[in-house]
Amino acid sequence: MAHTLQQLSDIEEIKVLKHRYFRAIDTGDFAALPALFTQDVACTYNGGTYKVSLAGLDAMVEFLSNSFHSGAAAMHIGVMPEVTVTGDNSAGGIWYLQDVFIDLEKDAHTFGTAIYTDTYRREGGTWKIATTWYDRVIEVLTSFSAMGGQLSVQRLATTGRKPHERTDISHLIHWD
Amino acid sequence: MAHTLQQLSDIEEIKVLKHRYFRAIDTGDFAALPALFTQDVACTYNGGTYKVSLAGLDAMVEFLSNSFHSGAAAMHIGVMPEVTVTGDNSAGGIWYLQDVFIDLEKDAHTFGTAIYTDTYRREGGTWKIATTWYDRVIEVLTSFSAMGGQLSVQRLATTGRKPHERTDISHLIHWD
Amino acid sequence: MAHTLQQLSDIEEIKVLKHRYFRAIDTGDFAALPALFTQDVACTYNGGTYKVSLAGLDAMVEFLSNSFHSGAAAMHIGVMPEVTVTGDNSAGGIWYLQDVFIDLEKDAHTFGTAIYTDTYRREGGTWKIATTWYDRVIEVLTSFSAMGGQLSVQRLATTGRKPHERTDISHLIHWD
Repeated sequence: MAHTLQQLSDIEEIKVLKHRYFRAIDTGDFAALPALFTQDVACTYNGGTYKVSLAGLDAMVEFLSNSFHSGAAAMHIGVMPEVTVTGDNSAGGIWYLQDVFIDLEKDAHTFGTAIYTDTYRREGGTWKIATTWYDRVIEVLTSFSAMGGQLSVQRLATTGRKPHERTDISHLIHWD
Repeated sequence: MAHTLQQLSDIEEIKVLKHRYFRAIDTGDFAALPALFTQDVACTYNGGTYKVSLAGLDAMVEFLSNSFHSGAAAMHIGVMPEVTVTGDNSAGGIWYLQDVFIDLEKDAHTFGTAIYTDTYRREGGTWKIATTWYDRVIEVLTSFSAMGGQLSVQRLATTGRKPHERTDISHLIHWD
Repeated sequence: MAHTLQQLSDIEEIKVLKHRYFRAIDTGDFAALPALFTQDVACTYNGGTYKVSLAGLDAMVEFLSNSFHSGAAAMHIGVMPEVTVTGDNSAGGIWYLQDVFIDLEKDAHTFGTAIYTDTYRREGGTWKIATTWYDRVIEVLTSFSAMGGQLSVQRLATTGRKPHERTDISHLIHWD
């Protein structure tokens, strides 16, 4: 019943894959994203006020590159992994997300948590995210200005897409 | 001095055990709880305004099933494990907890951190939590309504016990 | 390409080293600190309103022992490690930090995130932090009293240095 060395190695690689993903989106390191997903990646996010549904690597990268824009400040902490290796090149994973998303352009502060249910596939020796789905557990919406804080560092102001660089992703995300 | 394969496998299993616990309580997945603890589990939590002290699996499950009720929204992030395998079927673990607990019925928002000190026992091939103790590091109490936020997703509203389903756990928790 | 048993063991030890560090600073367990760093440790922290730059174990411990003082309440969650073993006794690591720092003496609440880039060295069989650098991703500054919360538990009030015990670390930290 114990894990094999190969399984433990795979689990560690999959954890680092997901960690790399969260670091990339919050810092605006979009060039790192294409290597993290399969070409046929499928994504469904059930937020409180939005629902994301998309398929394909291009749509995934375009969605993320527009969501983490120059007017945003984001924290996505993905922790408490429950990774299961299901085959030589396939695995599943459950993660617990804690996120803060400040959108200065909308004066909006979102604090939330969610449970991710993912699958992973190894292609050419490298683990990639094949399907990713999350469902909210809690979500609290607040006006950012009403909270009285001053945003003294905002990495995405530099690395995120400026308004004229953004593309239309309204077909990928539905707002209530 | 290096870890053996068996030890690394055990450490991974114990991490997943604890991750499963935190996911269960915050999502209201109470049916998952009995498999996570030994029959003689002992629990002591030293919060700022409460102290929990209980023994036995039934008391543990009853305490949790009432605490994570339909009027609550909870985030319990248990991270930074320091797990030590102490025998073939015994281990210890230290964890760092970050938690948010919103009780809409009391208009209360608690933000805190704590250090867990646990022991684990393997029974029938499965690791279980045998003793669990935490002591607060910081705790901040705020009126939830005064924070100006709107709770747009609250999983426990659906999965948590409604008022008429709750039982008396006043013998398990002492409030200041 | 898979990790060896030795590498997985090293990665686990390095994770625990860093976890031990975060637990020590937030709980005021300063006696634990000297064992966690090399004698020639180098540290650079780029905060929004401060910059820390220091070298040597004595300076590191003195900086930390004064920063986590009796008027502070701190949470430093270091998660999502990306650890790479680079030699028999050397390794690198990237971590994602989420921190809350309440300074009651300045009525200041800081919430932030940062990316750590570390190197580690094994000395006498024990992994230690050799270099540690972080750069802020987001930082929000708020007056603590304006947030309306009551600090009901503050571990550092007991374990942190009282005003008359503190030493001058102004040569190690530059405030804007």
